[in-house]
Amino acid sequence: MVGYKFMGKAHSHAYKDVGMFFDMDADVVMKAICGRDEEGVKAAADKFGWESYETDWRKLIARDDIDFVDINAPSDAHKEIALAAIAAGKHVFCEKPLALNLADGREMLAAAEKAGVKHGICFNYRFLPAVQLAKKIIDSGKLGEIHHYRATYLQDWLVDPEAPLAWRLKKEVAGSGAHGDINAHSIDLARFLIGEFDRVIGHNRTFVKERPIPVSMSGLSAVGSSEKGEVTVDDATAFLADFKNGAMGMFVASRFATGRKNHNTFEIHGSKGSIRWDLERLNELEVYFREDEPELAGFRRIMATEPEHKYAANWWPTGHIIGYEHGFVHITYEFLQHLATDSPFAPTFADGVRCQEVLEAVDLSIERGAWVSVDEV
Amino acid sequence: MVGYKFMGKAHSHAYKDVGMFFDMDADVVMKAICGRDEEGVKAAADKFGWESYETDWRKLIARDDIDFVDINAPSDAHKEIALAAIAAGKHVFCEKPLALNLADGREMLAAAEKAGVKHGICFNYRFLPAVQLAKKIIDSGKLGEIHHYRATYLQDWLVDPEAPLAWRLKKEVAGSGAHGDINAHSIDLARFLIGEFDRVIGHNRTFVKERPIPVSMSGLSAVGSSEKGEVTVDDATAFLADFKNGAMGMFVASRFATGRKNHNTFEIHGSKGSIRWDLERLNELEVYFREDEPELAGFRRIMATEPEHKYAANWWPTGHIIGYEHGFVHITYEFLQHLATDSPFAPTFADGVRCQEVLEAVDLSIERGAWVSVDEV
Amino acid sequence: MVGYKFMGKAHSHAYKDVGMFFDMDADVVMKAICGRDEEGVKAAADKFGWESYETDWRKLIARDDIDFVDINAPSDAHKEIALAAIAAGKHVFCEKPLALNLADGREMLAAAEKAGVKHGICFNYRFLPAVQLAKKIIDSGKLGEIHHYRATYLQDWLVDPEAPLAWRLKKEVAGSGAHGDINAHSIDLARFLIGEFDRVIGHNRTFVKERPIPVSMSGLSAVGSSEKGEVTVDDATAFLADFKNGAMGMFVASRFATGRKNHNTFEIHGSKGSIRWDLERLNELEVYFREDEPELAGFRRIMATEPEHKYAANWWPTGHIIGYEHGFVHITYEFLQHLATDSPFAPTFADGVRCQEVLEAVDLSIERGAWVSVDEV
Amino acid sequence: MVGYKFMGKAHSHAYKDVGMFFDMDADVVMKAICGRDEEGVKAAADKFGWESYETDWRKLIARDDIDFVDINAPSDAHKEIALAAIAAGKHVFCEKPLALNLADGREMLAAAEKAGVKHGICFNYRFLPAVQLAKKIIDSGKLGEIHHYRATYLQDWLVDPEAPLAWRLKKEVAGSGAHGDINAHSIDLARFLIGEFDRVIGHNRTFVKERPIPVSMSGLSAVGSSEKGEVTVDDATAFLADFKNGAMGMFVASRFATGRKNHNTFEIHGSKGSIRWDLERLNELEVYFREDEPELAGFRRIMATEPEHKYAANWWPTGHIIGYEHGFVHITYEFLQHLATDSPFAPTFADGVRCQEVLEAVDLSIERGAWVSVDEV
Repeated sequence: MVGYKFMGKAHSHAYKDVGMFFDMDADVVMKAICGRDEEGVKAAADKFGWESYETDWRKLIARDDIDFVDINAPSDAHKEIALAAIAAGKHVFCEKPLALNLADGREMLAAAEKAGVKHGICFNYRFLPAVQLAKKIIDSGKLGEIHHYRATYLQDWLVDPEAPLAWRLKKEVAGSGAHGDINAHSIDLARFLIGEFDRVIGHNRTFVKERPIPVSMSGLSAVGSSEKGEVTVDDATAFLADFKNGAMGMFVASRFATGRKNHNTFEIHGSKGSIRWDLERLNELEVYFREDEPELAGFRRIMATEPEHKYAANWWPTGHIIGYEHGFVHITYEFLQHLATDSPFAPTFADGVRCQEVLEAVDLSIERGAWVSVDEV
Repeated sequence: MVGYKFMGKAHSHAYKDVGMFFDMDADVVMKAICGRDEEGVKAAADKFGWESYETDWRKLIARDDIDFVDINAPSDAHKEIALAAIAAGKHVFCEKPLALNLADGREMLAAAEKAGVKHGICFNYRFLPAVQLAKKIIDSGKLGEIHHYRATYLQDWLVDPEAPLAWRLKKEVAGSGAHGDINAHSIDLARFLIGEFDRVIGHNRTFVKERPIPVSMSGLSAVGSSEKGEVTVDDATAFLADFKNGAMGMFVASRFATGRKNHNTFEIHGSKGSIRWDLERLNELEVYFREDEPELAGFRRIMATEPEHKYAANWWPTGHIIGYEHGFVHITYEFLQHLATDSPFAPTFADGVRCQEVLEAVDLSIERGAWVSVDEV
Repeated sequence: MVGYKFMGKAHSHAYKDVGMFFDMDADVVMKAICGRDEEGVKAAADKFGWESYETDWRKLIARDDIDFVDINAPSDAHKEIALAAIAAGKHVFCEKPLALNLADGREMLAAAEKAGVKHGICFNYRFLPAVQLAKKIIDSGKLGEIHHYRATYLQDWLVDPEAPLAWRLKKEVAGSGAHGDINAHSIDLARFLIGEFDRVIGHNRTFVKERPIPVSMSGLSAVGSSEKGEVTVDDATAFLADFKNGAMGMFVASRFATGRKNHNTFEIHGSKGSIRWDLERLNELEVYFREDEPELAGFRRIMATEPEHKYAANWWPTGHIIGYEHGFVHITYEFLQHLATDSPFAPTFADGVRCQEVLEAVDLSIERGAWVSVDEV
Repeated sequence: MVGYKFMGKAHSHAYKDVGMFFDMDADVVMKAICGRDEEGVKAAADKFGWESYETDWRKLIARDDIDFVDINAPSDAHKEIALAAIAAGKHVFCEKPLALNLADGREMLAAAEKAGVKHGICFNYRFLPAVQLAKKIIDSGKLGEIHHYRATYLQDWLVDPEAPLAWRLKKEVAGSGAHGDINAHSIDLARFLIGEFDRVIGHNRTFVKERPIPVSMSGLSAVGSSEKGEVTVDDATAFLADFKNGAMGMFVASRFATGRKNHNTFEIHGSKGSIRWDLERLNELEVYFREDEPELAGFRRIMATEPEHKYAANWWPTGHIIGYEHGFVHITYEFLQHLATDSPFAPTFADGVRCQEVLEAVDLSIERGAWVSVDEV
């Protein structure tokens, strides 16, 4: 694994726990973790339970005892590491965004397909029980024809103008701001749930244009200095979308939505029913069916914690909720089974590329002030 | 009508509006309103739309142009006025509580039955669309056998120790505190929805034992003086109940539930389903059915604002909510139709007496520190 | 008053009740109601409490005993009636939309201003206590600089393809579909709360293009025949907006949002706080303040039913909720006081025109596939 | 560790993960797990990450390489194992209930105190961030004097009469039904948050008196046979309580609350504020403060996922929720630190005994039909 910060912790935890709750067809051995700062990565290896560590990802990739590489380093490093790993014949699992831009993402996908290695991208929210239930309901036809899809991904950690200029706020490292970081999740969920985008138009803002340069650029919690630097990514991006199936879409991602901590929601209206979901209450799914008796119809608050719900029985008895990190355990389970047994797996690099296409089409629409077809980018 | 304060306003409004929204079999003529303070009652007659006013209820009752009397004077006056009205052959509609105590209530009921006049008591919450829907669901058997009934009626207007000693806090005028005022509503709803009480046991508190004597004793909003007087009613009363059908019951009424403004709720669990309701969101009913597919079962939030819901179509289109006073309009509609067409009507004085029996059984259980059978009082 | 259907009922009720709950500086006399169908309007006059009725609005306007005219006839009749009333020197209160198009609306505004009559438009939602509280919070600066405004107005009464072709679905009568009918409310609330629109871009859909022609074209509840006719308005319209103050806006109106009955919501994020409101729970306002201790900060569910909240004390004690129609009573109170005492009043025809500008800019943006400046239309 | 079923899994997970998210003053080594069925316990050891296993707890206790024993075997085995472990000088951590009855619990406490070993009981819910916040708010005086405490713990896994007769339904193994299993949690939370009980009175029910005997008695998911056996514990127990500080209490536990999956809630009203919490949304705390401006006061929905909240920063960034099992990780952290550094720790066996006293006082009150003082049992 390359990377040992927030995502490194979430991924490590998944590797550590997956075998305890799921029946795996292969053993999981946590061989090595890699990071540039020796002290930091050594501590992480120890803390997270890795057998060894490396400070140069090239060495990690060169090791014979490693079959597959998990990349959760900052976004600007994804491409180079992934290409090298693929070249070395390793399977690759990559944090989103796949790459800093679409061209790079396509190159990575092409390389992986050509090399015949297995590849995945960490759109973890697909794997929450309530989201799986939403997918099942839609696929069963119970919502009918889809008319509306609306998503929000709202956070507020930048609303304080003194919040420092973390790496996530520099285009050259992060590629994008709220758009690439969190709209990416909403776009992937929309594709997963109702299908492909046709065209988009958006707008965005950088509400605070300069921020204190942090003493260290690492992490969300970096402390700011008195010197200021330019924010080169968006604080918020919103867009309208037409889907290929005719549905109308609406998306907003913001780091300035005061009071909304991790408000990743979707609401879908079909001709036969509707669905609503919110990451802050990720165990619940609200569902409405028109076929219910009119007198008794209403949004149902389904607790997706019952034995009938995917993954739920692997954890605790009925009604005992799970948290954010469980999505990582589930995607890890699915990807490791994919490696071990060739079971089907998505999302792959192809999904990373599709998501990037939508992201870039939105950016292009902002430049042009007009609709952009996703197929055009 | 006798009484012209909070309840006088609510009742007057109902008489004024009922003909606009409902098809009545008789015309409603608002003949006269009565109160002791001439200036006050004159203003109310004018404001509320009454043709005339009286300052002595004996005169009101003596009038030939009046067929029925609505009594919403303070509780200690109910009995005398009602008995006189009944003796004069008038139909009577009375605010709850029916009387200051059970013996008085029984006397009123006996008089009304003997005289053959029609009688009703204003348990207005029965007549909200969501409560009617709850009743219909239970009567249809969709909840199965009832196991649990829990009710709260929580307010917080007395939590400030400087809130003045209003008439509602004096036993000789009000009869009882939170218990008689708001547990009475919960008891009536329980009887309406699931049936009769078997036995009860309770406890109560008067958290603030002395309060400033108000300059005037009228109304909730009276301003306090520097002199203090004793509070002689309960601030909060809670009790357990066994119902005759075997269900377990739990009730709490309080004027000290900080932050709860008018939190009149019930939650009912049966062998096949459950129901929850809250007066602060009176247009909604939460319902759970075990017969729903396990994967898709959840509490439904039903908006009882649809054409299928009782009384809803008389008001506004789908999804347009109604408020507190609409319950009064509905009960008024039903009682006036009862007068005009002899259509069935409940709650009558008999329901007022049943309610009073439960209230007094609870008080007796508090004295004794042991369960009291409701049939015993 | 011209019109006697859904809106006629809501307005009549307001005139009937306003004097009971508010202290008016002039008496309200309900002189005459007007409609084309004699039987219908006669019944309405009787039911709603009007002294007389007319079947020709010209006669109504010609009457000397009438000072002001309330127009809630179908939208295509607004202009002609209003111009005639203005010409006759009557004050005018008009249902929204002001007119079928912007040019007509501007003509009406110009006529009213030239004639010096008083004019108002019935954007009733401004006058709900929770919305008034939102306005007060924003004006006080407690939300800081506004970054985001999002509104939905979602209904589902057209999702059934067999729902008949009511007059609201014909462009020549209604002017517009969901956009003009319900986005209009959202646009007005946004202007009221945070100010003017700069530019917009939208998309729309008519999901069901043909519907059964009703036997009668009147009312929402018309029954369909076997013959079909073309739907010539939008079923749903969504748009992005930039506000002049720099805020990002997002709006969606739909009559195809299955399960959403009257889901008129707004959510506003400012640099210091956030607000959320929903018409289905119109007595509540959710508010977040960044200045709260971080450990204790959270969205507050404020019950706007307390004596401190505008209009609330005119109704019932604390915690007793009001409904949809109360907004009409409040706007009626304000407009009648405006007539009687020259107290300030908004929204006027000018607000109707501003709203229409935004609506038409959105339609133009849909035609062009590009942003349209509101000042341009 | 003795026990390897539901609780064995939850505890094992805590030992496995605690070092990854918390800085420990001692290493955690998962030496051995113990259970009677060799195949089962061997599989659990492997799955959960224990170094070895035993099939006889006496052998486990005899091992020199073991410093402390975690007991989560069925309740009837707690006493014997704990006494033996204490006798061997091991520290002991025990699942609740401490023992089958109060006398046994007192014996265990006395033994542990006499031996000077450290002891804890697994009231895990105390250690959720939102519950810790509730405790902090109450201790700070922000709620003022406590007037009301109400708790529910509602499940519905027994409402199906064909649900088999699991060991939890036999008094000789489980000691008690819903009362000992889940009211125990509510009682402990009440003691933790507002202090000691004075007197209680309750009632209970066994709604389904006979159930199919399962082929195997182990686990919640056992499959039933056609033969039936008697249920010897309560399906539901409710009680009223007076607290020593004068507060009124109300508790209900049920396994028949259809639709409520794990509805462990408390609501507390004090003279200055109120608190509400629900395990199904365990990351949230609803709090009301009277000191807020009246116009702006409302229940705040606090997400206890922020850096300011206890334990939250050890997990994920702001707004990323945690689940049921995290309470086990936190209590494990606190107990292990207590072992390593002698940091203060509660709940101990003494808390287990106090809880048992309340449980038994309630049972006694049911027998007697009258209030029972907790000091009396």
